[in-house]
Amino acid sequence: MNIKAGIVGYGNLGQAVEYLIGKLDDFELFGIFSRRETLDTNATVYPVADAHKYKDDIDVLFLCVGSATDIPEQAAGFAEHFTTVDTYDNHSKVAEHYAAMDQAAKANDNVAIVSTGWDPGLFSMNRVLGLSLFPEPIQNTFWGKGLSQGHSDAVRQVAGVRRGVQYTIPAQDAIDQARAGNGQGLSKTTSHERIVYIVADAADHDRIREEITTMPDYFEPYDTTVHFVSNEEFERDHQGAPHGGYVITTGDLQGHNASVEFSLALESNPNFTAAAMVAFGRAAARLKDQGNSGAYTVLEVPLYLLSQQSLQEMMETGLV
Amino acid sequence: MNIKAGIVGYGNLGQAVEYLIGKLDDFELFGIFSRRETLDTNATVYPVADAHKYKDDIDVLFLCVGSATDIPEQAAGFAEHFTTVDTYDNHSKVAEHYAAMDQAAKANDNVAIVSTGWDPGLFSMNRVLGLSLFPEPIQNTFWGKGLSQGHSDAVRQVAGVRRGVQYTIPAQDAIDQARAGNGQGLSKTTSHERIVYIVADAADHDRIREEITTMPDYFEPYDTTVHFVSNEEFERDHQGAPHGGYVITTGDLQGHNASVEFSLALESNPNFTAAAMVAFGRAAARLKDQGNSGAYTVLEVPLYLLSQQSLQEMMETGLV
Ligand SMILES: NC(=O)c1ccc[n+]([C@@H]2O[C@H](COP(=O)([O-])OP(=O)(O)OC[C@H]3O[C@@H](n4cnc5c(N)ncnc54)[C@H](OP(=O)(O)O)[C@@H]3O)[C@@H](O)[C@H]2O)c1
Ligand SMILES: NC(=O)c1ccc[n+]([C@@H]2O[C@H](COP(=O)([O-])OP(=O)(O)OC[C@H]3O[C@@H](n4cnc5c(N)ncnc54)[C@H](OP(=O)(O)O)[C@@H]3O)[C@@H](O)[C@H]2O)c1
Repeated sequence: MNIKAGIVGYGNLGQAVEYLIGKLDDFELFGIFSRRETLDTNATVYPVADAHKYKDDIDVLFLCVGSATDIPEQAAGFAEHFTTVDTYDNHSKVAEHYAAMDQAAKANDNVAIVSTGWDPGLFSMNRVLGLSLFPEPIQNTFWGKGLSQGHSDAVRQVAGVRRGVQYTIPAQDAIDQARAGNGQGLSKTTSHERIVYIVADAADHDRIREEITTMPDYFEPYDTTVHFVSNEEFERDHQGAPHGGYVITTGDLQGHNASVEFSLALESNPNFTAAAMVAFGRAAARLKDQGNSGAYTVLEVPLYLLSQQSLQEMMETGLV
Repeated sequence: MNIKAGIVGYGNLGQAVEYLIGKLDDFELFGIFSRRETLDTNATVYPVADAHKYKDDIDVLFLCVGSATDIPEQAAGFAEHFTTVDTYDNHSKVAEHYAAMDQAAKANDNVAIVSTGWDPGLFSMNRVLGLSLFPEPIQNTFWGKGLSQGHSDAVRQVAGVRRGVQYTIPAQDAIDQARAGNGQGLSKTTSHERIVYIVADAADHDRIREEITTMPDYFEPYDTTVHFVSNEEFERDHQGAPHGGYVITTGDLQGHNASVEFSLALESNPNFTAAAMVAFGRAAARLKDQGNSGAYTVLEVPLYLLSQQSLQEMMETGLV
């Protein structure tokens, strides 16, 4: 099966999906749909308003637009015409998004896999798996080491900050506690540190440090460290978008501790989000091909559908 | 849904399943089927030959018998009468087992989930997930720290060995290499060490060490360390059945490494195998309840079916 793919939105995620589709044998790219007229790509670019005209040319449409407003406003509209995959990351509104996508997709015989990526996405899967294994599971999710967009934006609002980034880092002793079965009392604030790198005039350093570390909610409850670096060092070391984290679940089984851990160490958050998204895109095309319709969370998609290999092949080659 | 469970075979795994069923609200135990007449349990015990008489009393039958001969000889017979779950661990014959179970289960409107547990089982799921994410994945499975039954049996065959156990331990530098994206060349032998604990007369120590470390296939290709301990120390420290391991997959995404890791640290191998088996037992009962039949690998079972919670609840509580 050769899967014809479309991409909506050409930001970090859209570009990373384009790259993967070019690399994978079972996908081919039909084109990119954007609100902008010209994009820096060799692919064919279409105005997003015309997307529906190409519904018969596309097996799966990757919705690479923003979660804050684009997905709630536009996603169900796409599900009327296309089988879709998204990475919608507003955890508190997943149920709402799922319901809207289910209605639009079912009414039009399409499949919509919602909230893929890694969190939500692979982390959601591992949270559910971990919790399902024990009568009294203890579970912690830790994030990092990772660049936090929201917190980086916040430090850049402080007067005198010329450049700034913020990394979230899980505290090693919190991870160790969770692994040992003592994760019950760990709070999000005490189990994460925040490290900030700032470019600013030396005269401003003390005030900037003070303003950042006392910023309510964002930094005040956390162990926060502010480093001042030169513009050259910032340029060299802080251009990436690393991220990752851990889902750790433990449980007691007749007096024996068991620890189950899923972790990610990602040099590029958008590239990996795209990797998960594309695997679920493969599954979406197959689900549709098998005659299914409606919305699916990642929890409803059997894993063999993510793979380029057939189930029989996986059994015969010892993967199972 | 209250799931009525039966257990076939009352070894380590059967006892661990019995314990879990007693702990979980959504399961109740109908009884245990054994080849032995009396078992040390408060549950009702039935001769295994009579099992089929109770087919209408049982929603899911846990096949806790041995993989070497019991499963190939008996499992399909049970699938004619019951929805089953097993932990069949002969990787090279999973396809064969699946085909036999599929035929028996389909012909009788039952569900049979095969080769659950952790390897095969959760590790199989994570191998397939990891490989599905990257155009050119590099994947390694490491086992341990864990008690190896086969290797412990082998050391106990050496003349003069009064008691003996063998632990398999993954080499830390092999794990680090895999995480960094350099796992391609790692062989199973160079990435695992074997540690042996022996109780024997002092006069025999040198010969025993020599015989063990030079044992072809079992120990000769590995970095093997033999420790001699007192009977008391053996009694205190080497009665458990710990196990675990790592599935590590990395891939390059536009020049950025991504590392995906699933790991287990288990104080008791059979207890955790049972935990995975019971979660899949829940899924088997639901699949059957939804009107499905036939064999399923763990790769075909959507994760939400493993959980006591409903999908809607999981979406609404932020698990997704
Ligand atoms: N589930 C997960 O694990 C996970 C992880 C990471 C991110 N995400 C989600 O993925 C979403 C997309 O992330 P992203 O990094 O791709 O966001 P982004 O780079 O900000 O792109 C979002 C949209 O903004 C527009 N855009 C991008 N660059 C632009 C520019 N230079 N000028 C004008 N418009 C531009 C694009 O639409 P047009 O092409 O139409 O202009 C694009 O689709 C995020 O909202 C986040 O919620 C999920
Ligand atoms: N997939 C995985 O991750 C995984 C992990 C671990 C193990 N496993 C599999 O699980 C299978 C069962 O493991 P296990 O540790 O439960 O094996 P076990 O303790 O040797 O039990 C196997 C069978 O032997 C019989 N038996 C047990 N104790 C006995 C005794 N004292 N005297 C006579 N018969 C006895 C029982 O049948 P009766 O009650 O009928 O006598 C029992 O069902 C293994 O073969 C292995 O393949 C899979």
